[in-house]
Amino acid sequence: MSQQPAPRLGLDIGGTKTHGIALDAAGRVLAEQVVPTTRGAEGVVQSALDAADACLASAGIQRRDLAGVGIGVPGQVDHLTGIVRTAVNLGIDQMALGDRLAAEFGIPVAVDNDVKAAALAAAAYLGATDLTYLNVGTGVAAATLAEGRLVRGEGNLAGEIGHIPVDPDGERCACGQRGCLEVLVGGGGIAERLAPLAPRVELPTLFEAAAMGIPDAVVEATRISTGIATAVQLVVLTQGSSRVVLGGGVVHAAHGLVEEVRRVLSARAAESEFLASLDLADRVTVLPADYPVAAIGAALVGRWVADPVLG
Amino acid sequence: MSQQPAPRLGLDIGGTKTHGIALDAAGRVLAEQVVPTTRGAEGVVQSALDAADACLASAGIQRRDLAGVGIGVPGQVDHLTGIVRTAVNLGIDQMALGDRLAAEFGIPVAVDNDVKAAALAAAAYLGATDLTYLNVGTGVAAATLAEGRLVRGEGNLAGEIGHIPVDPDGERCACGQRGCLEVLVGGGGIAERLAPLAPRVELPTLFEAAAMGIPDAVVEATRISTGIATAVQLVVLTQGSSRVVLGGGVVHAAHGLVEEVRRVLSARAAESEFLASLDLADRVTVLPADYPVAAIGAALVGRWVADPVLG
Repeated sequence: MSQQPAPRLGLDIGGTKTHGIALDAAGRVLAEQVVPTTRGAEGVVQSALDAADACLASAGIQRRDLAGVGIGVPGQVDHLTGIVRTAVNLGIDQMALGDRLAAEFGIPVAVDNDVKAAALAAAAYLGATDLTYLNVGTGVAAATLAEGRLVRGEGNLAGEIGHIPVDPDGERCACGQRGCLEVLVGGGGIAERLAPLAPRVELPTLFEAAAMGIPDAVVEATRISTGIATAVQLVVLTQGSSRVVLGGGVVHAAHGLVEEVRRVLSARAAESEFLASLDLADRVTVLPADYPVAAIGAALVGRWVADPVLG
Repeated sequence: MSQQPAPRLGLDIGGTKTHGIALDAAGRVLAEQVVPTTRGAEGVVQSALDAADACLASAGIQRRDLAGVGIGVPGQVDHLTGIVRTAVNLGIDQMALGDRLAAEFGIPVAVDNDVKAAALAAAAYLGATDLTYLNVGTGVAAATLAEGRLVRGEGNLAGEIGHIPVDPDGERCACGQRGCLEVLVGGGGIAERLAPLAPRVELPTLFEAAAMGIPDAVVEATRISTGIATAVQLVVLTQGSSRVVLGGGVVHAAHGLVEEVRRVLSARAAESEFLASLDLADRVTVLPADYPVAAIGAALVGRWVADPVLG
C-alpha cells in the first residue's frame, strides 16, 4: 500500500455560503462543494461540517485522512488562538471557532481572516511573495504579503481599510462614519444605490452603460472606479505593494471594472509626476473569476501550522 | 590604553538644516551640531561634511575613530545602495549619496529615508519593536516598524501616505492631486493658509485661539486635527500599528495639537462601535520636543549595517 502525503481541507465561511475544497499535497483540487451558511455560532459550525463532509464524500476520503483543516472567515480573527470576534455577517460575537472545529474534526484546525487567506492563494497562484490582495465584495479589506509573510499588525488588524473615510461628504457607513471606502465601493452600498435604477442600470453592465453615456451609470461607475483606484493607491503608498490583486464579488460582477480602475490610475498619473513614477496601473492585476481564491486560501491557512514560510 | 567601542555619527539632512550627532556605543549623545544645508548634490555633500566635522571637533574625535556614519534624507532612498532619488527639498534629482560620502569619510556610510530613520529612534526611545512614526512636518509620511523591522515595500516606498487624497474637494497639492493629506496637514499648506491671518491666528497658538472660538482658527484647527486623526486611523487600519508616534515640525509647533487629535479620535469612537473597539486615541503618543529623533535615527541607520535586528 503506497503512502500518499495527506490531503488538506479548506473552508471559506461567508455570510451566505460556505465553500469547501479538498486539495492534495501538491495543491491540486480533489473536490469542491458549496453549502448555504446558517448564521450564529452553532449554525456556522454545522455549515462547516456539512461543507467538509460533502467535500470529503465527493473526494472519497475520511476526516481522519486529512493532514489538517484551514478556515477563512470574515471578521476579526486571532490566527494564533482561532478565536473569532465580531464576525457581523456570520452572526458571531465571539467564539473559539478553531478549538470547536478541531474537537469536531479530531485534527488541527487553523483559522484566519478570509481576506488574509485569499492573499495566500493569490500568492500561490502568481508564484509571488510580495503582493496586496484587495477584496472588494460585501466588505472591503486588504491583505499584504511581504517577503512571503502576511502583514498582521496588532491583533491581526492590518488591512481593515474599508473603514478609512475618503470622502467627508460621503454617505453614512454601517460602522458609524461617513464616506468610508466600504460604503463607497462595497457591495452593500452599490446594491442600495443601484436598486432604484434597475433594470436600466445594473452592476454587470454598469461600465458599458457608463461608456454609452447614461448619466446615472456614469455617476455610479465613476464612484466605484475612482474609489477602488484610491484604495489601490492607498495600499501601495502605505505598504509599498509591488502588485495589487483585485478580487471579490464586485470586481468579478462588473464587466470592465478592472480596465476602468487602470484607466483612472493612468489619468491620475497624467496629472501627477509623483503618481506617474509609481506606475500604479501596472501594479493592478486580477485572478481568473473561476479560481476559488477564498477556498484555496482557506486550505493554505491550514498549511500555515506546518509551514511557517506561508504564515 | 583601553579600547573603547567606536562611536557613531548620524546626519539628518533636511531642506534647511543638517543636524549632526555623535553617539557612543551605548547610544549616549557625545556631541550635536546644526549647520545650514546648501541645496544641490555638491551642497548637500559639503553640508554633511561640515556638520560631521563640527560634531567630531566638539566631541574631540576623528573621522577615522568612527564605527560608521548614518544618513537620513527626505526623498526616495534605496537603502541597499545609498542612492537618493527625487529629494525635491534638497535639490537632488538622483545621486549615489552613500558611495560619495563613504569615499569622503573613508568608512561605511548607510543612507535611509529620514522618516524611516526617525522610526528607528522612536523605537529605541520607547523600547518598542512595533510602532508607526507619523511625521507631520513640511512633508507628511509614516514609517512602520513591525517585529523590529522597518516595513519597506518595493523600492522602500512604504509609508508615503502624504499623497493619499482624503478630500475630493480639497486644495491642489504640489504633486498634482487634490486633497492630499500633505496639503491638508503639511507645514507648507498650513503656512499658506495661516499667512493672511497673522498675527491674530498663528500656528503655535492655533488650538488655543480655536478653543476661544475665533472662527478662522476653528476652521484651520479642525482641518489639521481631523486630518492628522485620519492619518492615524489610516496607518492603524492599514498596518495594524499598536502605537502611533506623532512627530515633525507641525506637531511640536502647535500647542495642544496632540490632545486635540486624541479628542477627535475619541469623538469618532463615540459615533462608531468599530472605531471604539480600536482605542485609536490611546495608540497616539509623542516624544519630547527636545529629543533629536531625526538625528539619532540617522545614527541608527548606520547601525543597520552591523546590526540587522534594527534594519
